[in-house]
Amino acid sequence: MDAFFKPVELAHASRLVNHGPTVLVTSAHQGRANVMAAAWSMPVEFTPPRIAVVIDKRTFTRELVAASGAFGLCIPGASLLDLTYAVGQVSGRKVDKFARFGLPLRTGPVLGMPVVEGCAAWLECRLIPEPHAQDAYDTCFGEVVAAAADSRIFDRGHWNYREDNTELHGIHHLGGGHFVRSSGSVQARPLPGG
Amino acid sequence: MDAFFKPVELAHASRLVNHGPTVLVTSAHQGRANVMAAAWSMPVEFTPPRIAVVIDKRTFTRELVAASGAFGLCIPGASLLDLTYAVGQVSGRKVDKFARFGLPLRTGPVLGMPVVEGCAAWLECRLIPEPHAQDAYDTCFGEVVAAAADSRIFDRGHWNYREDNTELHGIHHLGGGHFVRSSGSVQARPLPGG
Repeated sequence: MDAFFKPVELAHASRLVNHGPTVLVTSAHQGRANVMAAAWSMPVEFTPPRIAVVIDKRTFTRELVAASGAFGLCIPGASLLDLTYAVGQVSGRKVDKFARFGLPLRTGPVLGMPVVEGCAAWLECRLIPEPHAQDAYDTCFGEVVAAAADSRIFDRGHWNYREDNTELHGIHHLGGGHFVRSSGSVQARPLPGG
Repeated sequence: MDAFFKPVELAHASRLVNHGPTVLVTSAHQGRANVMAAAWSMPVEFTPPRIAVVIDKRTFTRELVAASGAFGLCIPGASLLDLTYAVGQVSGRKVDKFARFGLPLRTGPVLGMPVVEGCAAWLECRLIPEPHAQDAYDTCFGEVVAAAADSRIFDRGHWNYREDNTELHGIHHLGGGHFVRSSGSVQARPLPGG
């Protein structure tokens, strides 16, 4: 994978989750690391690049994020669909999911967050402490401080969805382990009056 | 369209945006109505059903939402891709977008928010006042008080993506009018250790 991975300018980081994919939230603190799936994330600001992600306050991930003040977001492609669902079905309090699912544990360059190999892209985010939003809505805001993407599908600030990289196309959870994949790239045409 | 539209239980409302589609945010106050496109929205809570959507504070939509304390979210399918992009390119301060784009103005049952005909689903949301999140992140939280969906694609709490309803499949904005569609429905398989 690494041969294809290239840094993404922070000005383009929001585009990595702009299409609403299911993501993997990674976390680490004092020698323990974790990964969970999250369907609920979105960018909130281009500059500085900021995102929001819903992390249930009962999860081990939330505990690690609170302790370290950081989290990672990895964007799995279609080839990681089963893995994405699997890591969402078991708590990291009970098992080391990296070991259980044979995920090589790599670390991001700025915050040392785990990075899941085989994803289309990842972002390292510094938690922006917002106690009320975290408490009332489980919504964690983060500032993106590093990002990288597989250049076979995201290059120079743009996603390139093609027939020859379908394994990296985004996945979107409908519920109960049922997903759709994003594909069928199309450019909007101007409308009369537009 | 109406023949196919059925109410959606509020317990299932989060699923309408769970897959991260580009949405249309609708608003109305004192005889003026508006519609804009938004790529940045997500559920934040199942019960009560709550969502978050980023609405730039400079937009006319934001002004109407602040005045009325409500907004609508409509989920366009692939057949409304050009329209979705078009309504995101012009401000409702300058033009009546419903008139300009020939959108029939219908209203939701509880809050009277505009509903865009031809969408796969819509939600009426009561704004939850959160001055700090609105100011710092343009993030508006809302509680879903009514929802409905086209039963050809969402029925009894579940999305049914099929070959015969592709015009209602979700769209996901990559940037610059470039979209992908969600399709290719697939069920996750259990992993060893999962």
